[in-house]
Amino acid sequence: MKPADTAMANAFVPGKVRLDPASQRLVEERARLLGPAYRLMYEEPLHFVRGEGVWLIDAAGRRYLDAYNNVASLGHCHPAVVEAIRRQVGMLATNTRYMHEAILTLAERLLATMPGELGHVMLTCTGSEANDLAWRIARGFTGATGIVVTETAYHGITDAVAQFSPSLGASVDLGRHVATVPAPGDPGAEGPGGFAEAVERAVAGLRRHGIRPAMLIVDTMFTSDGVRPGPDGFLAPAAEAIRRAGGIFVADEVQPGFARTGDHFWGFQRHGVVPDIVTMGKPMGNGHPVAGIAVRPQVVAEFGRTSRYFNTFGGNAVSCAAALAVLDAIEAQGLQENAARMGERLTARLRALSSRHPLLAAVRGAGLMIGVDIRSGGAPDKAAAARIVNGMREAGVLISSCGMHHNVLKVRPPLVIDAAGIDLFADALAHVLSTMEGDAR
Amino acid sequence: MKPADTAMANAFVPGKVRLDPASQRLVEERARLLGPAYRLMYEEPLHFVRGEGVWLIDAAGRRYLDAYNNVASLGHCHPAVVEAIRRQVGMLATNTRYMHEAILTLAERLLATMPGELGHVMLTCTGSEANDLAWRIARGFTGATGIVVTETAYHGITDAVAQFSPSLGASVDLGRHVATVPAPGDPGAEGPGGFAEAVERAVAGLRRHGIRPAMLIVDTMFTSDGVRPGPDGFLAPAAEAIRRAGGIFVADEVQPGFARTGDHFWGFQRHGVVPDIVTMGKPMGNGHPVAGIAVRPQVVAEFGRTSRYFNTFGGNAVSCAAALAVLDAIEAQGLQENAARMGERLTARLRALSSRHPLLAAVRGAGLMIGVDIRSGGAPDKAAAARIVNGMREAGVLISSCGMHHNVLKVRPPLVIDAAGIDLFADALAHVLSTMEGDAR
Repeated sequence: MKPADTAMANAFVPGKVRLDPASQRLVEERARLLGPAYRLMYEEPLHFVRGEGVWLIDAAGRRYLDAYNNVASLGHCHPAVVEAIRRQVGMLATNTRYMHEAILTLAERLLATMPGELGHVMLTCTGSEANDLAWRIARGFTGATGIVVTETAYHGITDAVAQFSPSLGASVDLGRHVATVPAPGDPGAEGPGGFAEAVERAVAGLRRHGIRPAMLIVDTMFTSDGVRPGPDGFLAPAAEAIRRAGGIFVADEVQPGFARTGDHFWGFQRHGVVPDIVTMGKPMGNGHPVAGIAVRPQVVAEFGRTSRYFNTFGGNAVSCAAALAVLDAIEAQGLQENAARMGERLTARLRALSSRHPLLAAVRGAGLMIGVDIRSGGAPDKAAAARIVNGMREAGVLISSCGMHHNVLKVRPPLVIDAAGIDLFADALAHVLSTMEGDAR
Repeated sequence: MKPADTAMANAFVPGKVRLDPASQRLVEERARLLGPAYRLMYEEPLHFVRGEGVWLIDAAGRRYLDAYNNVASLGHCHPAVVEAIRRQVGMLATNTRYMHEAILTLAERLLATMPGELGHVMLTCTGSEANDLAWRIARGFTGATGIVVTETAYHGITDAVAQFSPSLGASVDLGRHVATVPAPGDPGAEGPGGFAEAVERAVAGLRRHGIRPAMLIVDTMFTSDGVRPGPDGFLAPAAEAIRRAGGIFVADEVQPGFARTGDHFWGFQRHGVVPDIVTMGKPMGNGHPVAGIAVRPQVVAEFGRTSRYFNTFGGNAVSCAAALAVLDAIEAQGLQENAARMGERLTARLRALSSRHPLLAAVRGAGLMIGVDIRSGGAPDKAAAARIVNGMREAGVLISSCGMHHNVLKVRPPLVIDAAGIDLFADALAHVLSTMEGDAR
């Protein structure tokens, strides 16, 4: 049976390229043991055995600059995080049904990075669980069941969350209670009134089907929609629009959060908006499975009255130790400032390349979360984006693509990257683009 | 506003007992920082700072025998698991979009513990995610949407899974697509035909509402239903019943799995039944967040065709290293055999106590998963169970209660417990029961 369109940009396609025998064996073993739902990246998938700072090292000893995985945001195997985990794992790892100081310290530290309205922290293991919990809380608070998301949003893979993650592809059904709006920044796509009016129209559409809106949830950098930071502030009227309709505003910071955008610690802060719930994950433990939410007390009151929350591993002492070490390192190493500075350097170099290579139609982003829009004659060029992504892999640099048309390069170097790393990235891209243009001539 | 019945057995109730100042501060800080949905255990909650083998050690240095937490199934901070995590966390922790040997080794090792029909392994971070994934797969395979669970089942806390976890309490709504059946073993509760006929009646009930059944999912020890191992084999006709109706049989091994039942590695094996999906979690990484499923290839084929599966932290190299170390230790230390032997010793001591103390109306279980039914005059005695649980805590032994009436002591010592540990447990229980009887006179 033919696979349906599962819409993963930059997925390995078995049989398309001849692999070396070692890779071929691993690919076959994966199919045999893990089954048909897993995907590898790149035309020729990679086999990593070690990570170190900005580098991932493959089985043959080749080093790749990891400019994609925002999980190891402090660099792979960051010494302080490794040390914190090593210490705590030998001490205690038990759960939140007992008292423990670390979870309280962590909650206090997280809340200190946010507006005062956000008063409680709840911990999960994954960003999917965090968004799933936000959804349960939103429903409890509003008594409503509708959701508004952007057209190519990704929020996670639990059953409930997959139903509001359109980027999973046309064969994963959206819930009937889910309405989509164009991602902001596509010229003309939003209609005359911009993003907030698009949200209002989506709410009206839900109501027409008898569904009241419970929440608007957005990745505040619209990462899967193709990285669309938009003009500062445009999220505030959208948040107001959903609140007027009785719903809440959930900022999904799983990808943008933890200082990546350079200007602020969280992506929503650029917009002068205070979310009702903030969800977080990926870089939170620099690779350790820890995620969670921050929530306004009045928003979680009803959920707390009717539902207890217990996540066996969520908020265990080791996860808290890892997350605290991450917060410490971001502060001690000035990584938000570094993200801003290196982001500027990278953006400048990308813009310079864009002036020489028309394929690079636009460079968007904030800090070290950057999207490069690949177009030919004004139209999204998915094939060229795929060639660049695979060419960069050949050149020893890891990126991927995103966006509705899979034509936006998704560039997310670790926050610890330095000027030499940025230059290596830009030089590699220049090389790949020149080679592609040479091939085309 | 009055809290709804959130039905957690043995939860701390703020204000009921006067706490020492240090505990009072922690309780208040938790309420302030973590909000209203978290629960602590015991009348006087505990503050642990260290774990070591069968012991949890509180801030004052007092040691408690942990006969409750089946997560640290090899004992807290098991040296080999700690060492495996410490080694891998400094090496690499990246994700399943790259190839890696450890996930393949782990999948092979897990499948080797199961019947050959189960051919693929998929990894998540939590048991909730594992059951959520099983549900998505069941729906894809059957094209149906109904679920049959037992009346006091617990399967997890994602939105979808909470809807089929009736033990979360009356204020967390079951889905309209969810039908419950009495847990097996309640005399008379199942009706004449036993558990399989109860499943058939539930299926008929769903059909009457136009809902076809997708799955029967059971914890194979019916842990939250009050630990009901039932007679060997009774699950097989129930699995057949759901399959005849077009659904699949999912064995939730999150609590019973990984050698706890002593007789077999998995709870379902006692029944001579081969599940369509096996879900696993809690003890899988001895505290590290790792969970997953094993599935028959034909059952996951449709899901794999339409949906890709990516769990950012699921199956990362550190989680795999922890899970492999757990499998190694179970084998190297003969822990399945120890669970059988120590389970027998504990059961014998509990039965001896039961002959002297009529409150202990029944002792049920397999290996080191034991339920003790507390009744007065034949009726479930929730209050007496709570007094025993809190008395044991005073005596330095951790257990809790479960079952529809919260009257079943839930006893799950680590698999590494020795005869001295069992005797300490039984002596403590004898002491608590004598004290209670003395108080009653």
